[in-house]
Amino acid sequence: MIQSSAADRHANPDEHVSRLRLRISISLDGFTAGPNQSRQEPLGVGGERLHEWVVALAAWRSAHRKEGGDVNESTAVVEQEIANIGATIMGRNMFGGGPGTWSSTNPWNGWWGRNPPFHHPVFVLTNHARAPLVTEGGTTFTFVTDGIESALDQARRAAGGKDVALAGGARAAQQYLRAGLVDEMQLHMVPMLLGGGDRLFDTVSDLHGLGLVETVALPNVIHLRFERAQQPQ
Amino acid sequence: MIQSSAADRHANPDEHVSRLRLRISISLDGFTAGPNQSRQEPLGVGGERLHEWVVALAAWRSAHRKEGGDVNESTAVVEQEIANIGATIMGRNMFGGGPGTWSSTNPWNGWWGRNPPFHHPVFVLTNHARAPLVTEGGTTFTFVTDGIESALDQARRAAGGKDVALAGGARAAQQYLRAGLVDEMQLHMVPMLLGGGDRLFDTVSDLHGLGLVETVALPNVIHLRFERAQQPQ
Repeated sequence: MIQSSAADRHANPDEHVSRLRLRISISLDGFTAGPNQSRQEPLGVGGERLHEWVVALAAWRSAHRKEGGDVNESTAVVEQEIANIGATIMGRNMFGGGPGTWSSTNPWNGWWGRNPPFHHPVFVLTNHARAPLVTEGGTTFTFVTDGIESALDQARRAAGGKDVALAGGARAAQQYLRAGLVDEMQLHMVPMLLGGGDRLFDTVSDLHGLGLVETVALPNVIHLRFERAQQPQ
Repeated sequence: MIQSSAADRHANPDEHVSRLRLRISISLDGFTAGPNQSRQEPLGVGGERLHEWVVALAAWRSAHRKEGGDVNESTAVVEQEIANIGATIMGRNMFGGGPGTWSSTNPWNGWWGRNPPFHHPVFVLTNHARAPLVTEGGTTFTFVTDGIESALDQARRAAGGKDVALAGGARAAQQYLRAGLVDEMQLHMVPMLLGGGDRLFDTVSDLHGLGLVETVALPNVIHLRFERAQQPQ
């Protein structure tokens, strides 16, 4: 059961606008992570199942310096997702290390090791100030304490004309969705239930003009891409 | 953006088994009805938007003795949904009339008028006994007070070898899903948010082997069909 779309996946009517592009995996019951998150299970109980579709792909594995993997209809979706991204925004919970102030003696430096797979500036939303973290491979984490609009401004400047990725988690996504600042939303819906955890659309009741423009369905994931409706000329 | 599937929509490996087939419209945030349900707005605030995709179809309109309407990729989905159904189960809230005992002087007789569009036996789950309601066109409503398994047994006998439709609402669906009694689940996911209301998967954390077998996507609705995995021979 493989499907593709007649829509133009790469349509971007105004190449000069840097867009904010949310991409996130969710369960059929709407969770971006399962219940009982911990340092051992950062995605909560069962949450790893949300990403089985992507970690099996050659496109993901090569970005993480692993060999092999699958090539299927999800490949083009992931390639489109990576394309033309100049900066990433994420929430503190996705960066990890637990809540509260950062340890000065043993600070949490993310899940991604010495050479994170971003290779561009990353802005982390947090309530706790911290000096930037420079890693190998071009990824610098900047910790933003003055809100989502400041983070977006900084990310757009750092992106050098390219788009900005909004990587999650749920609470970071909710803040940008509620503010109507998301220009593209790519949901990777995994057809299983988590039964609890972080719900993507909690506190969000309006898509602010984001409409479904493309669906790519596989047995293990349904890719739903939303874009903001064009403004009248 | 129109898609079709390579899967055989009509595959039914054992024609002699009467299957329980849930079909229900849900919002992107998982609601089958909006908030603040009332007799004036039985689907809650915004809930009518869940059914705009189907009431525009010629297939739906002709079943409701209306002329005109659209023919598109949803048409075959609706035709498949109607095919081979010999009885329907629904919850009290979907039948309507509010909670509690039935009025003996002015009983609620459903939303569907003198000639409901079912044309086969319908079983209504309720805690309050009531004599069967016979309407024109072959639809008889039987009120079942001794639980979901009794309703399913009665519906299967009444269906004469055909399948049984589970029409909703959310709480009726949840009971059958939790019990692992659903053989097919056809979700009509409308790509908009309701922000509150009845959540289909509340209290459900396990699909009991229901796997995605077909996706048909249009701009205004994504049809997701799940079937129970085949038992090994």
